Amino acid sequence: MSDFASAWAELAAIGRTPAGYFRWAWSDGELACRSWFTAAAAARGMSVETDGNGNLWAWLGANDANAVVTGSHFDSVPGGGGFDGPLGIVSAFLALDVLRERGVTPSRPIGIVAFAEEEGSRFGVACLGSRLLCGELDPARALALRDRDGVPLAEAAGLDPAGIGPDPKRLAGIDAFVELHIEQGRALADGAGAPVGVACAIWPHGRWRLDFAGEGNHAGTTRMADRRDPMLTFAYAVLAANKAARLRDARATVGRVAVSPNATNAVPASVTAWLDARAADQSTLDGLVDDVLAKVAERAARDGTAMSATVESLSAETGFDAGLRNRIVELLGGPPVLATGAGHDAGVLAAHVPTAMLFVRNPTGVSHAPGEHATDEDCAAGVAALADVLTDLACR
Amino acid sequence: MSDFASAWAELAAIGRTPAGYFRWAWSDGELACRSWFTAAAAARGMSVETDGNGNLWAWLGANDANAVVTGSHFDSVPGGGGFDGPLGIVSAFLALDVLRERGVTPSRPIGIVAFAEEEGSRFGVACLGSRLLCGELDPARALALRDRDGVPLAEAAGLDPAGIGPDPKRLAGIDAFVELHIEQGRALADGAGAPVGVACAIWPHGRWRLDFAGEGNHAGTTRMADRRDPMLTFAYAVLAANKAARLRDARATVGRVAVSPNATNAVPASVTAWLDARAADQSTLDGLVDDVLAKVAERAARDGTAMSATVESLSAETGFDAGLRNRIVELLGGPPVLATGAGHDAGVLAAHVPTAMLFVRNPTGVSHAPGEHATDEDCAAGVAALADVLTDLACR
Repeated sequence: MSDFASAWAELAAIGRTPAGYFRWAWSDGELACRSWFTAAAAARGMSVETDGNGNLWAWLGANDANAVVTGSHFDSVPGGGGFDGPLGIVSAFLALDVLRERGVTPSRPIGIVAFAEEEGSRFGVACLGSRLLCGELDPARALALRDRDGVPLAEAAGLDPAGIGPDPKRLAGIDAFVELHIEQGRALADGAGAPVGVACAIWPHGRWRLDFAGEGNHAGTTRMADRRDPMLTFAYAVLAANKAARLRDARATVGRVAVSPNATNAVPASVTAWLDARAADQSTLDGLVDDVLAKVAERAARDGTAMSATVESLSAETGFDAGLRNRIVELLGGPPVLATGAGHDAGVLAAHVPTAMLFVRNPTGVSHAPGEHATDEDCAAGVAALADVLTDLACR
Repeated sequence: MSDFASAWAELAAIGRTPAGYFRWAWSDGELACRSWFTAAAAARGMSVETDGNGNLWAWLGANDANAVVTGSHFDSVPGGGGFDGPLGIVSAFLALDVLRERGVTPSRPIGIVAFAEEEGSRFGVACLGSRLLCGELDPARALALRDRDGVPLAEAAGLDPAGIGPDPKRLAGIDAFVELHIEQGRALADGAGAPVGVACAIWPHGRWRLDFAGEGNHAGTTRMADRRDPMLTFAYAVLAANKAARLRDARATVGRVAVSPNATNAVPASVTAWLDARAADQSTLDGLVDDVLAKVAERAARDGTAMSATVESLSAETGFDAGLRNRIVELLGGPPVLATGAGHDAGVLAAHVPTAMLFVRNPTGVSHAPGEHATDEDCAAGVAALADVLTDLACR
């Protein structure tokens, strides 16, 4: 436990502000985390490499075949918490220390990975590094991505454009992938009171960009009846999405909006908003989004505005490998098994490699916000559980 | 009319983009307009000076006493039209040309003024230059103003901080002020079909900043029932304000919003929005705002959020000088007389100096947006009307 607290303290200040963490991919903060990774690997006699997609790997043993890999990501949402991502990487290094203390001699390579741009906060595509690795994102699309300042991905990441894309050889060398992550809800806290849980599935989820077009006008002189105000249609969409999610025990969020011209005394000409929607199964998700878009289209007709929706990303339900999950559940003495509404690199890898996830209890359930927290005791329990899993997988 | 078209063409390209005009106070575009002003004054043998508050003046004759002043402003809202402001200044110079052609010899000084930061788009206080001139804005408050980039007013304007504030001597030298402005609604277009109208009053109006506080959280994992989402309360406020204005034949607009952290996959921690509200009389305006704030407070309680409202500006109803108005109405042969929901520098000066406004027809009524337009014929009619008014006032 004290091992955890001291290792954690090394990262805690990086990218931290009173409004939460700002560790955008390849920002100063995320690069400082990567430097920490390199030093942590070197201290353990591990080799380090960055792959063609900007993912960072450390290897104990040769990186050839039958490897067991664990890890997560360093990048945060803007104003995020400190645990989402880094906890899985710090825990990976500490779990290797436990293996050494136990005198375990792995019979296969063990890798630790820090995936690039998991949150999609800089380039708008979540799990960018793992999607590229797995061939689930067209390299041409990735090369065209630009951040809010217009910087292209290859330039921001310092990557050779020719090297961006699927890496089947690397993927084929991985026998199992395990990602440890802070829980982003309160299932472990509200339920059995267990510090560690195991994932069974990731809900299907997606992002839709909603473009509302109206007519810019004067806020003081334009009669209400003469307006075509896209802010009204947008506001209705926010409330409609919320209601549709409540009715289905699903999730719908409008967390990002851009208004033009965004002036106090002007009826906006246009509003763009992003809808994040997730549900326990695909048909519920489809029903939710169809319902919202239909209701908003009706409202747009009444407001004299136009709304168009564009799918920016869509992830089908991910079921994690049942054999691996059952083995881990047995090994850990029957921890809670839960589905999650959050996307993860593990969800991307699961279609290609037997994959599992461990969750560490989050007392408040707060996530993607400064209040995100896990106790040192629970984090240490996470390290111990990951060490048990790695011991089992690396020696079998 | 051809005089108007050629003079207008000199300014048309300055600060123009496909998304409308961007002529923030003291931006490159607004400074280019000021250079045009200086050249236009020099070409007519007028002296030019900038007062301590950044307002630009041109004088025909000594600037001592009993002056007749006309003018408007160059700055625009972001993405605004090209007529709102500049039309009054260009028309002023062209009206002086008409006086010269008519052989009119003014018996008193004539001034043309370009007021600074009328829209409040850069520093958030509308009619900044005229309010400071008239002592209606505390200089200490003005000195503390910063634009969105953190630049203080005095620095942006290149002003001596000690010179910012009321200028009673300058004000006392003005005998009458007349502002010509494009109409920002369709009263002239829908009504009698007249190219020029005269203002009787400006509606009382104000701006309220609404701060919505909630709890940032993960968009995928936080149950709907566990959320404290300020975007919901904000969306409700947008719709409530619209409804309250419709019920009262008043105006309410939410045109500007800022979301934190503004990430697609995060429930926002906070939302700030600005409410612009106007009505034909003060009690209607008060009733509208009270109604909206009360309804939003109820909704905030249901959403688990908090809302606080701050008045950023408040302008009482402005009645223009009845004697001057009647004289102008008679002189122009009984043009339409109308009230407006838009604030103007003329509204600020009206409390200190006999003041009048002329409006030029706007076929669509669109304002504060690229579609704002007046025909060359109507603009020429505006110049002729202003010339008639200046002839009458400067020779009496």
